[in-house]
Amino acid sequence: MQESVRIALDAMGGDNAPGEIVKGAVDAVKEKDSIHVILVGREEAIRSELSKYSYPEERVEIVNASEVITTEEAPVMAIRKKKDSSIVVGQGLVRKGEADAFVSAGSTGAILVGGQLVVGRLRGVERSPLATLIPTEKGVALLVDSGANVDARSSHLVQFARMGSIYMEHIIGIKQPRVAIVNVGVEEEKGNALVKETYPLLKACGDIHFTGSIEAREIPHGGADVIVAEGFTGNVILKLYEGTASALVSQVKKGLMSSFRSKLGALLIKPALKKTLKSFDATEYGGAPMLGLKGLVVKTHGNASAKEVKNTLFQCLTFKKQRIGDRMKELFSDENNQKG
Amino acid sequence: MQESVRIALDAMGGDNAPGEIVKGAVDAVKEKDSIHVILVGREEAIRSELSKYSYPEERVEIVNASEVITTEEAPVMAIRKKKDSSIVVGQGLVRKGEADAFVSAGSTGAILVGGQLVVGRLRGVERSPLATLIPTEKGVALLVDSGANVDARSSHLVQFARMGSIYMEHIIGIKQPRVAIVNVGVEEEKGNALVKETYPLLKACGDIHFTGSIEAREIPHGGADVIVAEGFTGNVILKLYEGTASALVSQVKKGLMSSFRSKLGALLIKPALKKTLKSFDATEYGGAPMLGLKGLVVKTHGNASAKEVKNTLFQCLTFKKQRIGDRMKELFSDENNQKG
Repeated sequence: MQESVRIALDAMGGDNAPGEIVKGAVDAVKEKDSIHVILVGREEAIRSELSKYSYPEERVEIVNASEVITTEEAPVMAIRKKKDSSIVVGQGLVRKGEADAFVSAGSTGAILVGGQLVVGRLRGVERSPLATLIPTEKGVALLVDSGANVDARSSHLVQFARMGSIYMEHIIGIKQPRVAIVNVGVEEEKGNALVKETYPLLKACGDIHFTGSIEAREIPHGGADVIVAEGFTGNVILKLYEGTASALVSQVKKGLMSSFRSKLGALLIKPALKKTLKSFDATEYGGAPMLGLKGLVVKTHGNASAKEVKNTLFQCLTFKKQRIGDRMKELFSDENNQKG
Repeated sequence: MQESVRIALDAMGGDNAPGEIVKGAVDAVKEKDSIHVILVGREEAIRSELSKYSYPEERVEIVNASEVITTEEAPVMAIRKKKDSSIVVGQGLVRKGEADAFVSAGSTGAILVGGQLVVGRLRGVERSPLATLIPTEKGVALLVDSGANVDARSSHLVQFARMGSIYMEHIIGIKQPRVAIVNVGVEEEKGNALVKETYPLLKACGDIHFTGSIEAREIPHGGADVIVAEGFTGNVILKLYEGTASALVSQVKKGLMSSFRSKLGALLIKPALKKTLKSFDATEYGGAPMLGLKGLVVKTHGNASAKEVKNTLFQCLTFKKQRIGDRMKELFSDENNQKG
């Protein structure tokens, strides 16, 4: 029997909700029989969007949630107060085992807080990091933590490295992924206090292929498969990646419009350029999962289009097929047993 | 009378020493009458390079230094042990007032340590940051600290902000430069412990135009003029800037070679593209000074060419003309008086 996945999808989250979110769900169930979507949010608004399409209705459910958490709200307060929000209700379905995964393009802060409070961490997991795939010259690398835990400690970073390694091996299919910690130099004595404390712990870790420090310069060149960083640094890396690429592209475009000769050239290179830039566009790689929770929680871009929502739903299927949740559980249950 | 500047130049530092360094010095003195260079390093090697050129000999001196500090050496140890190295001797000339500035393309670590130990900090300055100009869509921004002090404290960051503001106003000519602190979000409650502690201090600072937090995404778009960061984060930003730009450019070039059509287009756009990419190339902006020392110390790229060396020497002249050293001194002497 074919494996199937039940995904609670936040219909109210993100800049393009509910329109693009619902469309993404419809496209996903039409394309893959093994996907079952539970749209969570204001029922009326969802029904009105759904009425625009024909689709296999038996694989699209609606669960009503009357409230919406905005990106402006303080996350902890919002999760505590808005019990009937699409995020709390959707994550509750995962907690109760009624859904395998929760996907949202809504408030990152609220999704992260809800992941820890509503879904909960696996036993033995100290912090749950956000793991984001970033494009490199050689393919993709996993940035973990890309922003969930600022002021994380060395023991957290070691867990991020181990969980990230499992992700890259089983989801992306890289055998023995190279794990490196972000640092200001490659020599072992370099670094801030946190990195200096974490380095020997990673080196002593038997179940990962630790290759040492990586300077930020080497990340886009594909210098490692799993990039370990504390959440503040990771978030700076993720956002600067986006910012530099978009600024450079807009400068190049402006440059191309500067003369008749370059305008003509621009017409000729357009298809090739488009393809290249696409390979450097983070939105092509679906959402970012939180690792180490009792169920799957995936954050997609706030401006996610239907296509990105669909890709993120497909990603959840891969997670289920590859038994990522079970593998994480095993990783930490071995540890708990060893300790006990 | 025209203002002149005496610069001690490390002839032995960097990948292209002494050839490109000496050539840069020769080009600089030929181009500007007000520049006087003291080449510091192995006299024989320097003389042999100088013999290739004709130049105004009265404005080029040599001070012998028999040792060289390599980038592999631990900086503190190297500065302490190699008393006759080009870095220690050159910085000693600044300390003794025999030179206005010291310029080197050598070991960043050794230059930074020597700056603090040999040249020394101005009274009242707690840490001396490295201030690097980075290209943005709107021109340039000053990244301070770009790597001198990892694990810096909030009071250090406030000083970085104030010194950076003076730099941008008087060297780059931006009135009331916008000062922002690197953060994971723009809301005031966002951030790690350090940023949360620093934010209100910057806000209370009467002598800078503090605009709040800046997300890394906005840096390349020119979201602030002075980008304040602790040295670890600043170094990650600087290196990722370099890495993303170079990876993207190499991907674009590869893409352009993918078809006959795009190859033809590439020929047409080459001049425009080159010009654009040049504006995003950090090496165009000379070296990075350490701020808050008793004399000027400037670090140039390890792979600096003669042209970059020359630009950095010109930069020292601007520093002298704009009385940056005096202005920094006044900034902290006011403070010392207020405290006293």
